Amino acid sequence: MMDHTVKAFDNDIGRLRGLISQMGGLAEEAIANAIKALQRSDLELARKVREDDKAIDLIEAEVERLAVRTIALRAPMANDLREVVAALKIASVVERIGDYAKNIAKRVPMIESEDRIEPVSILPAMAKIASAMVHDVLDAFAARDAEAAIRVRDSDNALDDFYDSIFRTLVTHMVENPKTIGQVAHLLFIAKNLERIGDHATNVAEMVYFAATGTQMGERDRGGTLPS
Amino acid sequence: MMDHTVKAFDNDIGRLRGLISQMGGLAEEAIANAIKALQRSDLELARKVREDDKAIDLIEAEVERLAVRTIALRAPMANDLREVVAALKIASVVERIGDYAKNIAKRVPMIESEDRIEPVSILPAMAKIASAMVHDVLDAFAARDAEAAIRVRDSDNALDDFYDSIFRTLVTHMVENPKTIGQVAHLLFIAKNLERIGDHATNVAEMVYFAATGTQMGERDRGGTLPS
Repeated sequence: MMDHTVKAFDNDIGRLRGLISQMGGLAEEAIANAIKALQRSDLELARKVREDDKAIDLIEAEVERLAVRTIALRAPMANDLREVVAALKIASVVERIGDYAKNIAKRVPMIESEDRIEPVSILPAMAKIASAMVHDVLDAFAARDAEAAIRVRDSDNALDDFYDSIFRTLVTHMVENPKTIGQVAHLLFIAKNLERIGDHATNVAEMVYFAATGTQMGERDRGGTLPS
Repeated sequence: MMDHTVKAFDNDIGRLRGLISQMGGLAEEAIANAIKALQRSDLELARKVREDDKAIDLIEAEVERLAVRTIALRAPMANDLREVVAALKIASVVERIGDYAKNIAKRVPMIESEDRIEPVSILPAMAKIASAMVHDVLDAFAARDAEAAIRVRDSDNALDDFYDSIFRTLVTHMVENPKTIGQVAHLLFIAKNLERIGDHATNVAEMVYFAATGTQMGERDRGGTLPS
């Protein structure tokens, strides 16, 4: 590439990183707010999470436009192309993470506040792990840190084990309190959404690793015993 | 574009369409086999669905390489660029549809054959609608048929209503047969996976519409009353 093309490319990639970091911040906030809304039966906050998701979708569309434009105009090679394609794919995964948070928020009105069910209290700890994975993996992307990406992937095992344990707790709760089954089913889906957020952070970790090293991350032994 | 570039572009887009149609066929087959495995408690077939999913992932990677190469080498404009970006995004959604089928297959061993639960019998009809949506939307992509894409999106309402009804049936079954709760919870997730397949087919319908017309499909009233 000519010098001015190199500079233009560096600007583009810098802007892509900035947009993804912004999306990641919004996704983390969405997870935190969705769980807070659930704990407090705060329908207004749940509505806000659903509304705020549009901002994430808009940034994803912007990343897509910019990435395609960068590939078409700067024709980057090897390492640089890998970086732009990673940005494109990571934006799409972060958008999905935002959707999971939105799906959690949508269930808040279905869990009545009159008759609070005790297992709600075990979800925030799981949400913290999921949210930290999202945070850490986007830091790893910003720093092109392949080792940090491996650590994120490994922490998904803890989340899977957590999900297994919550699944069992919720089913036991259903058996012992049949009148809460409808509501606890929604909690099952919320736990599942958190587990999927961890899976997606793991996918991003694999993309970060590949963008930084040009090789695939090795296989891992998946935590938990339940399917995704 | 110069003549030989136009021809090269047409070849590329033809190959992209072919790969996506191939992925779609595999995804449809995966849905059908996963549900057949569930009905028959066929662990071998369930294992095959999980194994076959790797072929879908490989084709997605091939679409990604070819799409990025096409953008970089042929520098397509407007309509053509929209088509290539659509192919890239549709491949990623079809890969996710394959994952949902795989997730259904993973639950087959958790639903014991000794003690078959009656609600299993209501899932195949739902799977048929979901699978038909995947089929029809990829036909719409191949034919650049915006009207067909709208019909796919509209049929998602029927799937959402079906899911609502299954959700209620399964919860009622849990209440009346508490000892089956653990297994019926897996059926809930399977129904949810089918509903998500319909959502993803709808996303593809929106992409097909945009690729064909250059404008966004209008909003719709979503069917069903339960969150995604």
